[in-house]
Amino acid sequence: MQNPIFNAIYKKIESETYANILGLKLVKLDYGYSLVKMAYSKDIENMFQTGHGGAIFSLIDEAFGAASNSHGTVAVALNVNVTYVKPAFKGDTLYAEAKEVSRSNRIGTYDIRVMNDKDELIAVCQAVAYRKKDRLPFLD
Amino acid sequence: MQNPIFNAIYKKIESETYANILGLKLVKLDYGYSLVKMAYSKDIENMFQTGHGGAIFSLIDEAFGAASNSHGTVAVALNVNVTYVKPAFKGDTLYAEAKEVSRSNRIGTYDIRVMNDKDELIAVCQAVAYRKKDRLPFLD
Amino acid sequence: MQNPIFNAIYKKIESETYANILGLKLVKLDYGYSLVKMAYSKDIENMFQTGHGGAIFSLIDEAFGAASNSHGTVAVALNVNVTYVKPAFKGDTLYAEAKEVSRSNRIGTYDIRVMNDKDELIAVCQAVAYRKKDRLPFLD
Amino acid sequence: MQNPIFNAIYKKIESETYANILGLKLVKLDYGYSLVKMAYSKDIENMFQTGHGGAIFSLIDEAFGAASNSHGTVAVALNVNVTYVKPAFKGDTLYAEAKEVSRSNRIGTYDIRVMNDKDELIAVCQAVAYRKKDRLPFLD
Repeated sequence: MQNPIFNAIYKKIESETYANILGLKLVKLDYGYSLVKMAYSKDIENMFQTGHGGAIFSLIDEAFGAASNSHGTVAVALNVNVTYVKPAFKGDTLYAEAKEVSRSNRIGTYDIRVMNDKDELIAVCQAVAYRKKDRLPFLD
Repeated sequence: MQNPIFNAIYKKIESETYANILGLKLVKLDYGYSLVKMAYSKDIENMFQTGHGGAIFSLIDEAFGAASNSHGTVAVALNVNVTYVKPAFKGDTLYAEAKEVSRSNRIGTYDIRVMNDKDELIAVCQAVAYRKKDRLPFLD
Repeated sequence: MQNPIFNAIYKKIESETYANILGLKLVKLDYGYSLVKMAYSKDIENMFQTGHGGAIFSLIDEAFGAASNSHGTVAVALNVNVTYVKPAFKGDTLYAEAKEVSRSNRIGTYDIRVMNDKDELIAVCQAVAYRKKDRLPFLD
Repeated sequence: MQNPIFNAIYKKIESETYANILGLKLVKLDYGYSLVKMAYSKDIENMFQTGHGGAIFSLIDEAFGAASNSHGTVAVALNVNVTYVKPAFKGDTLYAEAKEVSRSNRIGTYDIRVMNDKDELIAVCQAVAYRKKDRLPFLD
């Protein structure tokens, strides 16, 4: 992994408190692409003892952030639309995969899917990022 | 607060690990209505030192869950659409207010807004819940 | 109605073929606000003899376009999220009311509701416009 | 084409006034899948002389309706989220392709993409249908 942008994003996520609290790990990163992982734990349970919608969304958002910032300039979440297909359960490992669908100067569009380790679909997401002109502030 | 459904939801959220990790507090609850609070902390920062989209969404989702389950039967998140209007910053206290827009046997629709304590709009959300027939499992 | 921007938008919609085919009429217009009307007709029926989702969406989109362009510069639809609450039936007159929720240099956010003339909610919508710098091309 | 459900949907769309007004043609249909076509015409122009968001949405909605009803029971639009990527222009032929992403007893989820005949992406859509138990009323 020699790409300085990718290296910087990996490091940033590894040191992010929020990512660490939820156990979010960036597994793969490419231009407009990312794969992020989260193991189900008691900590992310909702009132029905399944994965909290907020935790699953956080997994999605982390993948979205990594993919949309992979071009080296700041991209921020503008709109995120999630459809929950199946609950996440104890024992699951969850993966969010983000793929860039389109990108212009100012706008990036992403498809994101969450699967568990039995290859079952947990959630689908369509997300829109607003792309600023600024270089990522944590690039050296 | 004598309503047994509301009491049960308050207690459930007070004891939810995920809510406690993020500092989510249910402030008000009524039929089809809720107000949930989250203080900004270092723990919820994203890579740009503003509030993580996943944390803001978790606040939204907690309000959505409380409001949609307030009728005493199980409601689960089906679709959630969030538009982020303004970042959350250090020092902010954030509030998500959920209001039921419509409700049929099977489907509930909710408008949710996130404001900070300066009365600035942080995010708007439209959410759809699927309503099961089952009574909330944690009602005595 | 002396405002030259509003006048120009009214005229534009009155002469729009698409609006005329569907019977869309701009009823009220203000900065960041619009009300558009559509009478149910056989022409907008879907395969179940209720109002076609595309026709109801077109009503929404016309209201969205009027409200988001009311500031005199070009705004284009970026993301539109619609939840259908109740079908539209023969005999209904439908109204879409668009309200600006937030506006920055580049982005505008709108809440849009469709009601029938019995004051029943037909659909709710959250929409995001991308705001260009250009003045509306049809302003004199 | 021997499948009686598919035949019935083809016929229904061929005779739908709304589809005919906009020039919507069902090109392919399979279980959970459809491809619908619309030629750009003056009739579908918005105030900026590009394809009206409502017309593009109607194309999407027709594909969504065909795919979600292809199992022979009534499915109605519950939530539709569209992101517009690129305008449609004079001379374009537009195609909406709907693919079922998941399906349970009550809920179906669909990805829909609109392309022009130069293979450019015009819009992406994520849609949720509510599935009733009733057989399609126009099946013999």
